[in-house]
Amino acid sequence: MAGATTIVQLRVSDVRFPTSLEQHGSDAMVSARLPLAFQPELPAIYLFCEAALDPLTLSVQIASTCSTDPHFARDPLHTEPDYSVAYVVIETDGGHEGYGLTFTLGKGTEVVVCAVEALSAFVVGRTLQEIVGDFRAFYRLLTSDGQMRWIGPEKGVIQLATAAVLNAVWDLWARVEGKPLWKLLVDMEPRKLVSCIDFRYITDALTEEEALDILVKAQEGKCQREEEMLRDGYPAYTTSCAWIGYSDQQLKEVSVTLLHPFKVKVGADLQDDVRRCRLVRQMIGPDNTLMIDANQRWDVQEAITWVSHLAEFKPLWIEEPTSPDDILGHAVISKCHNRVMFKQLLQASALQFVQIDSCRLGSVNENLAVILMACKFHVPVCPHAGGVGLCELVRHLILFDYISVSASLQNRMCEYVDHLHEHFKSPVVIRNACYVPPKDPGYSTEMREESVRRYQYPQGEVWFECLPLRECP
Amino acid sequence: MAGATTIVQLRVSDVRFPTSLEQHGSDAMVSARLPLAFQPELPAIYLFCEAALDPLTLSVQIASTCSTDPHFARDPLHTEPDYSVAYVVIETDGGHEGYGLTFTLGKGTEVVVCAVEALSAFVVGRTLQEIVGDFRAFYRLLTSDGQMRWIGPEKGVIQLATAAVLNAVWDLWARVEGKPLWKLLVDMEPRKLVSCIDFRYITDALTEEEALDILVKAQEGKCQREEEMLRDGYPAYTTSCAWIGYSDQQLKEVSVTLLHPFKVKVGADLQDDVRRCRLVRQMIGPDNTLMIDANQRWDVQEAITWVSHLAEFKPLWIEEPTSPDDILGHAVISKCHNRVMFKQLLQASALQFVQIDSCRLGSVNENLAVILMACKFHVPVCPHAGGVGLCELVRHLILFDYISVSASLQNRMCEYVDHLHEHFKSPVVIRNACYVPPKDPGYSTEMREESVRRYQYPQGEVWFECLPLRECP
Repeated sequence: MAGATTIVQLRVSDVRFPTSLEQHGSDAMVSARLPLAFQPELPAIYLFCEAALDPLTLSVQIASTCSTDPHFARDPLHTEPDYSVAYVVIETDGGHEGYGLTFTLGKGTEVVVCAVEALSAFVVGRTLQEIVGDFRAFYRLLTSDGQMRWIGPEKGVIQLATAAVLNAVWDLWARVEGKPLWKLLVDMEPRKLVSCIDFRYITDALTEEEALDILVKAQEGKCQREEEMLRDGYPAYTTSCAWIGYSDQQLKEVSVTLLHPFKVKVGADLQDDVRRCRLVRQMIGPDNTLMIDANQRWDVQEAITWVSHLAEFKPLWIEEPTSPDDILGHAVISKCHNRVMFKQLLQASALQFVQIDSCRLGSVNENLAVILMACKFHVPVCPHAGGVGLCELVRHLILFDYISVSASLQNRMCEYVDHLHEHFKSPVVIRNACYVPPKDPGYSTEMREESVRRYQYPQGEVWFECLPLRECP
Repeated sequence: MAGATTIVQLRVSDVRFPTSLEQHGSDAMVSARLPLAFQPELPAIYLFCEAALDPLTLSVQIASTCSTDPHFARDPLHTEPDYSVAYVVIETDGGHEGYGLTFTLGKGTEVVVCAVEALSAFVVGRTLQEIVGDFRAFYRLLTSDGQMRWIGPEKGVIQLATAAVLNAVWDLWARVEGKPLWKLLVDMEPRKLVSCIDFRYITDALTEEEALDILVKAQEGKCQREEEMLRDGYPAYTTSCAWIGYSDQQLKEVSVTLLHPFKVKVGADLQDDVRRCRLVRQMIGPDNTLMIDANQRWDVQEAITWVSHLAEFKPLWIEEPTSPDDILGHAVISKCHNRVMFKQLLQASALQFVQIDSCRLGSVNENLAVILMACKFHVPVCPHAGGVGLCELVRHLILFDYISVSASLQNRMCEYVDHLHEHFKSPVVIRNACYVPPKDPGYSTEMREESVRRYQYPQGEVWFECLPLRECP
């Protein structure tokens, strides 16, 4: 890197896609709803239409609702997720930019945006060189500030915000170096890589020396594996075919064009789950891989009963059967919110697959820690993807895992969902059911400006179309 | 309750006390800090003084700093906590009010405020009767909304916000019934009490029937225990004497006037910890109780080494030795962020004391679940208190635990810290080292209006005094 690059600004946007209208991403977690009364005595009344908006044609169905809260009306009417991001842009004095994001489900994105703003004070005014020169200290600064730590630590809103901010820093770093992120990681000296990881709370499972040792040993054959990836790509599997909200016809239509292993979302209704698993098993045949995902729907006992009914369809794994906080209740595969949760699941031999996430863990830094722990415990990494941008980002991490850490493709694949890629400047490319390594510099986090503008919540044109005839107080 | 009481408004304030200046509440968690440069080329520059403000005399020492972020300058200069609350007021159409709060450490309170605003849509427009008529459903609504769940679930920012909102609802309910909260709970039918608890994810440790059974059995002797509490109060212990930042002289001065059992904050420097533990042990003599609290400072191995050096001072427990997410690394006593974490610690026999918290768990509802689980596993409940308002609130819960659940005082006591009580309308009263049961209706959550006004951040007069000569863009 030539000269110091000072970060002079951080901007963050709330960008939401009305996916609920198409039941993309529908899963089993449905909450209770109660109707709200019209309150004529209150000072400010907002009139909203329900957002029955087709995102492709922009045609709108209007169902009006009143509320005193400008954020209120659309949201409580929807139980389905609107795939969203808190989208971060950092700018340097030298004209470089870095883009970062974290994935959310609609409501509450504004809370993550607020947390990003709170973290921006740690970033603005610093040089990139200062940050990456001691990335571990900077990670600690963001995650362990004496006052901010209370509202986490390292979980929930603040962890999502940390991911968004640090993803932008990693994107900036890779751009300044002129490399895609996976290549930046693959080319980095093992000692430098390890210096990006905060080992606090995991030294009983993985020490810095052990991490270094894993990376040094994996240097052998690295060039061949890089060539192999550039030639063949990294194996993918899909979830698109089996959302709970899809009709049988939709299910059949999408599945024929998709990749080989399938994941079925379950947990709302046992009979319906049996029917859908049977349908998918018939379509893919007895030999292809099927996984099931319950999205935290069950208690521990319930999970055991339910899964026993689905066992005949031979799922490879059961994803998120119960609360994400439940170490002992977990089985087989889990998304965790930080390295400490992953550490315990590995120590307790409670999972057989590690499901990293580019936006739920603390960016590349914490994903490196988890990838290295998984390697030590001989558990394959199979990333979570889908949402908005998760496929774009996580392909960098899984390429690094194969080339520089695990050196194995056995029992490994990376989730893929075929939607919303059109909003990214360097969208995922799938060839022969494999992720093709991206070549553009950066972390593939940059979104198309038009997408950010049109889908900004609530002022973007897509949301504005169905927005309030608003009377200000 | 006569007639329906509709909640027509929810207001939330960011109220911060500059405790960092007095080292009240200092603990071992110190983060890295790097200086920030003055950026003359940026559009808006704010000039701040460092908040060297004495909250009692309001005298100010000025040290100026520049930033482009209005929230920036004061904060990164401080590693010590400023004890704060997100303070919620709900109003009904019948003129009733309910007050709620959650405790924070300064920075980041604005993020919790933003989350409370996001949750307000679930509260405003509903009647109290609708909410408490099926409190479990309402709890589920707040914690498991299909979109919001992603930014938790049930942890961090959104859990703190849930606590603040629901604490206000419980306060309102107790006020409408004309009873202090502990009495509302003690008088409530067991079946009704149990209907306030969400058993999701804990049925493998405690079922609804088991909870009911515990409550029904404890009806025996309830009246006598209530009389006993009104006469004698509930045993307290203190942490005030042993904050890390206190000098030996301060340590000696405060301790003579305080209660019997002592807790010492450790983890920054082993030699200093040994010296301070020795000092306290000498002052209280060999028979009084001493506890130590490391505030998540250590890795697992480090905790073992450190604690072995402090063992000679015979601490009753070691609080938070490592990450709050680490089930297997935990020992003896733990603050947890939700019932699922407590459940696992109880199932794994990994703790000997349960440290409930009125503002970190999901309000009274989730504390009821944890209190009942602790009873089933025969583990005493010793609440966390201190901060702002935690003593005021938690005394209600521990009175309920004794009168209606555990029926035991053996190995039990409730933390007490002697500061910031003057900001509450119904402050804690300690008599003979015991908490006196409060008699005012409600949850003791109401703050003095003048305190809320003066300490509001950043516009209250206490903060305004040391605030920016601000140039707007």
